[in-house]
Amino acid sequence: MSIGKNISFIGSGNLSWHLAPALDNAGHAIREVYSRNKKNAKELVNRLYQAEIKEDLDFSDSLSQIFIIAISDDAIAEVSQELVLPDNAIVVHTSGAKSLDILGYTAADATGVFYPLQTFSKSKNVNFEQIPICIESESVDAEKLLMSVAKDISKKVYRINSQDRKALHVAAVFASNFTNHCLAIAENLLSEKGIDFNILKPLILETIEKGLAIGPSNAQTGPAKRHDFETLDEHMSYLEKDESLTAIYKIFSQNIIDNYPTD
Amino acid sequence: MSIGKNISFIGSGNLSWHLAPALDNAGHAIREVYSRNKKNAKELVNRLYQAEIKEDLDFSDSLSQIFIIAISDDAIAEVSQELVLPDNAIVVHTSGAKSLDILGYTAADATGVFYPLQTFSKSKNVNFEQIPICIESESVDAEKLLMSVAKDISKKVYRINSQDRKALHVAAVFASNFTNHCLAIAENLLSEKGIDFNILKPLILETIEKGLAIGPSNAQTGPAKRHDFETLDEHMSYLEKDESLTAIYKIFSQNIIDNYPTD
Repeated sequence: MSIGKNISFIGSGNLSWHLAPALDNAGHAIREVYSRNKKNAKELVNRLYQAEIKEDLDFSDSLSQIFIIAISDDAIAEVSQELVLPDNAIVVHTSGAKSLDILGYTAADATGVFYPLQTFSKSKNVNFEQIPICIESESVDAEKLLMSVAKDISKKVYRINSQDRKALHVAAVFASNFTNHCLAIAENLLSEKGIDFNILKPLILETIEKGLAIGPSNAQTGPAKRHDFETLDEHMSYLEKDESLTAIYKIFSQNIIDNYPTD
Repeated sequence: MSIGKNISFIGSGNLSWHLAPALDNAGHAIREVYSRNKKNAKELVNRLYQAEIKEDLDFSDSLSQIFIIAISDDAIAEVSQELVLPDNAIVVHTSGAKSLDILGYTAADATGVFYPLQTFSKSKNVNFEQIPICIESESVDAEKLLMSVAKDISKKVYRINSQDRKALHVAAVFASNFTNHCLAIAENLLSEKGIDFNILKPLILETIEKGLAIGPSNAQTGPAKRHDFETLDEHMSYLEKDESLTAIYKIFSQNIIDNYPTD
């Protein structure tokens, strides 16, 4: 466990909502929360022991050493440049998509990335212990400090550079956003027929369980994997009223066929 | 619970491997197993109380009333026509993809469909109680009997006609085969960088849990949902060496954008 650090948050969205209390509970002191959204900021401050709302980006009198920017990707560069900081400040962003360079014009002693690889909703508690946290910094000392703070809340802390984090983020889009969209497409196809989406629940759970247990490449099944062109054709005629779904079905099946040349 | 029925299996693949013992344990008697694969047939018979291997498709002397065809889709029509059957026989296939009509030339008293909506592997036990079973028959009596047999092993038995079963099968391809392929793509992207696929495990589990809890359309997140074109472009340049992945990324993102016109 690292010595308790003073930390300030810029941003009060879903990530801050979970990350700030996790750090607080691990013995760090969240001192300030700045957010354009005053209501969110207030709600977040109420979840913390001694944090206060910060009305502007001038942190020159702050006790904090670590400043965590948890805001939308497009705002990071601008906000980070507007920060006025005390000596020895470390500024990190929490984005999977953005490289470390984006903080290049920040007036900090060191910059870094503190990226928890998870999807966050306010309404749903998460167990930070199991959430991988990806750390990067060009400063050896800052990296060491960030690693140690991350380890206070998670058992899975990785040193990942910006290039690898991009691979991770693209992979996460496939593994999370696109899998979820596959489920949403299935939900729509069933609702057209008045069939409850929950009928697919056991299949979905078994698919994911098997994919994680033996690796998804080993777990692939279905008509495309079997090169069962008759079924593929039948499914595509079923979908033909929706051009874009037909195209998705086709390109996905073709990619599966190419990846599994023989069944 | 229905009165124990005499049942014969045609086919000894992954489905028979799990379904035949489940019916056996529920008080039905599996009498015969026919399979082109003698080794599989023998192994399956060893899992059953009193079944015997059947060497041909002449079941005229069989005690069975229900004949379950669990073989690959393309073989169903031909094999079903070759069956020689006793009086009052009900022949069912177990395919999600094929309509009931495919059994039209079977010399049975009644035909039907007995489709368990799950993915089966020999090495992995399944809990049949939770597996939805979709039943169809043009004969009211046969349908009643099949429903009652299905209810002996599963709590989730549905009457689903061929047209709705096709919708269900297409939806299952999206929800199972395509989600698994999304995971496989993520696995490949990470392995190129030497990153362990397991780093995505908490994200994948949370995604599925959330999608099933609040419905996938409500759970969608990510750069496409946010209409974050900068990240989409960056991801596509990252993927550009692989044309087919780039195309998948693009068509999927576009479909998400179209389905969530504003964030």
